[in-house]
Amino acid sequence: MDKAHGADVGSEKIVTAGLLVIGDEILSGRTKDRNIGTIAEHLTGIGIRLREVRVVADDEREIGDAIGALRSRYDYVFTTGGIGPTHDDITADSIAKALGVSIDVDPRAEAMLKQHYAHRGMALTPARLRMARIPAGASLIANTISGAPGFRIENVIVMAGVPDIMRAMLEAVTPALEAGDRVLSVTIAVNKPESEIADVFLAHQLRYPDVAMGSYPRLCDGRPVADLVLRSTDGAKLEEAAETLRALLAV
Amino acid sequence: MDKAHGADVGSEKIVTAGLLVIGDEILSGRTKDRNIGTIAEHLTGIGIRLREVRVVADDEREIGDAIGALRSRYDYVFTTGGIGPTHDDITADSIAKALGVSIDVDPRAEAMLKQHYAHRGMALTPARLRMARIPAGASLIANTISGAPGFRIENVIVMAGVPDIMRAMLEAVTPALEAGDRVLSVTIAVNKPESEIADVFLAHQLRYPDVAMGSYPRLCDGRPVADLVLRSTDGAKLEEAAETLRALLAV
Repeated sequence: MDKAHGADVGSEKIVTAGLLVIGDEILSGRTKDRNIGTIAEHLTGIGIRLREVRVVADDEREIGDAIGALRSRYDYVFTTGGIGPTHDDITADSIAKALGVSIDVDPRAEAMLKQHYAHRGMALTPARLRMARIPAGASLIANTISGAPGFRIENVIVMAGVPDIMRAMLEAVTPALEAGDRVLSVTIAVNKPESEIADVFLAHQLRYPDVAMGSYPRLCDGRPVADLVLRSTDGAKLEEAAETLRALLAV
Repeated sequence: MDKAHGADVGSEKIVTAGLLVIGDEILSGRTKDRNIGTIAEHLTGIGIRLREVRVVADDEREIGDAIGALRSRYDYVFTTGGIGPTHDDITADSIAKALGVSIDVDPRAEAMLKQHYAHRGMALTPARLRMARIPAGASLIANTISGAPGFRIENVIVMAGVPDIMRAMLEAVTPALEAGDRVLSVTIAVNKPESEIADVFLAHQLRYPDVAMGSYPRLCDGRPVADLVLRSTDGAKLEEAAETLRALLAV
């Protein structure tokens, strides 16, 4: 693992990430974000801990400030949105500015787009060429769906906002990511209000301080259910904590 | 409108908000957030502009830092999550600490809970009483579903994370909110890739600088659609910009 990434805490290897969702349409409520959940689940599965998410408008300063804050705090920053061909797509330029690097049409990205459009009998117009603007020093992330690539520069990974395209880019970039120990989890669903198991649950947390425990209430046919979630990188300890909790709650 | 809120920019009255989603379960991907979209849409509808969203873990410092940043920047801060009876519910205590006020069992909240549980033949246990811990000086937000109230302190509005309960609290708090001019919007769906309308769209944005224009691509049966969204508080200008754009694009 390169020096820039990860930390060893005791015997645990911890790699962290922040996520920046870029787009007026999410903040207006017009578009309902589906990428946060997809990325969170994916990162958990590969051993990267998502620590913070921010959603900001299509605004150069807002994007730059958030990128600066997140990339100094976490090993990786993922972004979604704002890399299309229209004038409101300002992510690439905003990130170049935030990182203090130049940006121009990238010959590799131009070749990708040329091939994509030629394949469909379409011309590479100036508007389409705008999607080949990539900050200097970035590596490209293939877009198997619509041609225009994402990119990675330093610890910032820039992806499309359209969920299918974002997912393809996330898969494409994954093999190149450093990962830490996976946080494993067990969920115990209890058909009771949280308030009835709170004391037992607290005592159990104190008994197993290394296993993070959270309770997530929901309504099932109008009746309260508490999902008790136990998390740890230590599978044996996790299983022990889960077994003893099940016994205590008789579930 | 009280002095703390809003700004008049030209003839526009602008009221802004930030949203803080609190919960490990969102960051792990276990729970898919549905509140961001609901709150964004609701605020747009009542004339409050959601400018930023953050998602942080159940961690006192993370919550405090985010509350501090958001409440100094925006007229209102809404939070969801972390107000239940279990040990991982630390939102109320974290916010009291961030605002430098004390927190204890609130007699009004205790009375609400007592009535709620008495109605169901249940006792107000110490665990349940934990949900009556409210920062000093806060006003309560009724919870018509599960008894435990949300609260408002200064410009911070604290709501539950369970979507049905959050929605009830959002409705309950709405009449007390100052609102600004509503941002109206028109969506024009074009059955073309964004890159084919980008030039016309940019020219149109330059012609109507007061109408914010964004393009949101999606795939419909595998074919590209661009939703062109025009936004303004001026209904007449918005309609003119939309009409002329429809004519230009022949849709």
